[in-house]
Amino acid sequence: MTNGFNAIIGSQAAPQLAIVGSGDWTKAALDVCPLELPSVVVSTPNEADLSSVRILLGAPAELIHFIPSCPNLQWVQSTWAGVDAIANFATEQLQITALKGVFGQAMSEFVIGWLLAIERQIIQRGVATTWLDGPDGTVAGKTLGIMGTGSIGSAIAGASCTFKLRCRGLNSDGRTQEGFDSCFATNDRLAFARGLDYLVSVLPNTPQTDELVDAALLDQLSPGAIFINVGRGNAVDERALVAALASGQLRSAVLDVFNTEPLPPDHVFWRTKNLHITAHTAAPTPSDAILSVFAANLHRFLQNKPLLYGVCSQKGY
Amino acid sequence: MTNGFNAIIGSQAAPQLAIVGSGDWTKAALDVCPLELPSVVVSTPNEADLSSVRILLGAPAELIHFIPSCPNLQWVQSTWAGVDAIANFATEQLQITALKGVFGQAMSEFVIGWLLAIERQIIQRGVATTWLDGPDGTVAGKTLGIMGTGSIGSAIAGASCTFKLRCRGLNSDGRTQEGFDSCFATNDRLAFARGLDYLVSVLPNTPQTDELVDAALLDQLSPGAIFINVGRGNAVDERALVAALASGQLRSAVLDVFNTEPLPPDHVFWRTKNLHITAHTAAPTPSDAILSVFAANLHRFLQNKPLLYGVCSQKGY
Repeated sequence: MTNGFNAIIGSQAAPQLAIVGSGDWTKAALDVCPLELPSVVVSTPNEADLSSVRILLGAPAELIHFIPSCPNLQWVQSTWAGVDAIANFATEQLQITALKGVFGQAMSEFVIGWLLAIERQIIQRGVATTWLDGPDGTVAGKTLGIMGTGSIGSAIAGASCTFKLRCRGLNSDGRTQEGFDSCFATNDRLAFARGLDYLVSVLPNTPQTDELVDAALLDQLSPGAIFINVGRGNAVDERALVAALASGQLRSAVLDVFNTEPLPPDHVFWRTKNLHITAHTAAPTPSDAILSVFAANLHRFLQNKPLLYGVCSQKGY
Repeated sequence: MTNGFNAIIGSQAAPQLAIVGSGDWTKAALDVCPLELPSVVVSTPNEADLSSVRILLGAPAELIHFIPSCPNLQWVQSTWAGVDAIANFATEQLQITALKGVFGQAMSEFVIGWLLAIERQIIQRGVATTWLDGPDGTVAGKTLGIMGTGSIGSAIAGASCTFKLRCRGLNSDGRTQEGFDSCFATNDRLAFARGLDYLVSVLPNTPQTDELVDAALLDQLSPGAIFINVGRGNAVDERALVAALASGQLRSAVLDVFNTEPLPPDHVFWRTKNLHITAHTAAPTPSDAILSVFAANLHRFLQNKPLLYGVCSQKGY
């Protein structure tokens, strides 16, 4: 465990910034902090005096244990995109910011990679030991629906364009977004889903996104559609998903996110045919992305400027 | 077997155009022919009187048996991109045209799909029955070298751009091509290969492309590189490829084309680790592409205009 105090000039001063975690990135983050801001790297809330801490940096799953112990907290920078665990702490006095604008490439690779792998039979052909003749499918001319039109959804839409996919978007109010042929409001989700060949969710975990992918929506898809979830597990009615795979209404599903992670070994998903399970690996957080977003926001914070990627406690993201 | 004579107005006339094959596309091709041009669909050379045939349409593997039987032949339209089997028949009196400009999408899907599948571990994750943690790779920032910078190579270069790949091209004289960061001549193939993360060949089968991918070239690649061949099998020194996979200099290879197809069951490739074999399925010929290129060229032929995608017997493509 790194003892971050070593790196502090005037280590007698109570820390104003606490970096929560134990990875290599924590040392690099400490280097980003200016000398006049006493800073510390900690793993548990009782490791340091948190009474003067104004700034927290870390993963929401750990931050949730620190925030109540910091009476003078002003800003929390998440190292994840998903901030549902801590979004409700956001107030006028306490800003919470997410890690954004850095997952588009990895998410696009994952979504386009899996769509191509399924259409081009790469999983079967990858282990072929005989000459597997017969034609592949193609993504060209298919229609992709993306639930969530923020920076990740827009990046996926941009990449899909290259392969002649058409793109439909779903967001809270149906506002248009660049890169999408059309956008629908959450209330119009059945019209959004009608005839889609591929459905991708990048939705955050909020009460408004609970089980949006249910039997009614899956029924609207083109028969034999493919579903990919790289958002959060709450968006899926699990029973309806298993039924759609069993009936063939869905040809395949690729799930990277679940209500409980790791997915428990006795979960029905492990025994569901044509369901591919990845281990929340679609978009790992690149350390340099944490540093660049943190450094940019720290600079803004110290200059009393508005922070990037602020979270709204009401919206939950 | 379709008896194409049925479709001919004045079927007593000796055919001037012969469509070679038995697929559904042959009937549609017959519909493209003008009534004043007696046309026939045939499967073997002795099925019809070929003495007046001026135009042949079909696959090179079959056309090779027809061309010598047509004393008055003026133009041969191939339904394949690869015309090495018949290129040497091209003269000033006999034009041979290839099928081009229609494989870019399918080839891009195949190449980008396989690169993403390997980097993102889709083949392993696709059959996972437990929670496979641990990070994937990414194609972002990697350098892709494409041997062949014609319409197929350019399409792949364009698609790779979307995923932040850098692209280097190889062609006969090193001429620059849009979409490539730099291009090298065949003579400079070792400089071209130096440090490449990914190598893709879309080269045609000509004496100049024989075993261009040999031990010397493979040695220049970045250690752990990936090689994909969607051109023709002659471009690869098979022994050197197997050795590079065994040593780890190549992490994976994906071969869609071979010197003998189907690849014989006793071929060493079937027993080579990290070598994926696909059955010449990278870019199936879409029937509508045959029809549109044939129709365009037929119109030009009947108006004595230069044909599209003409083949040079000296270059062999």
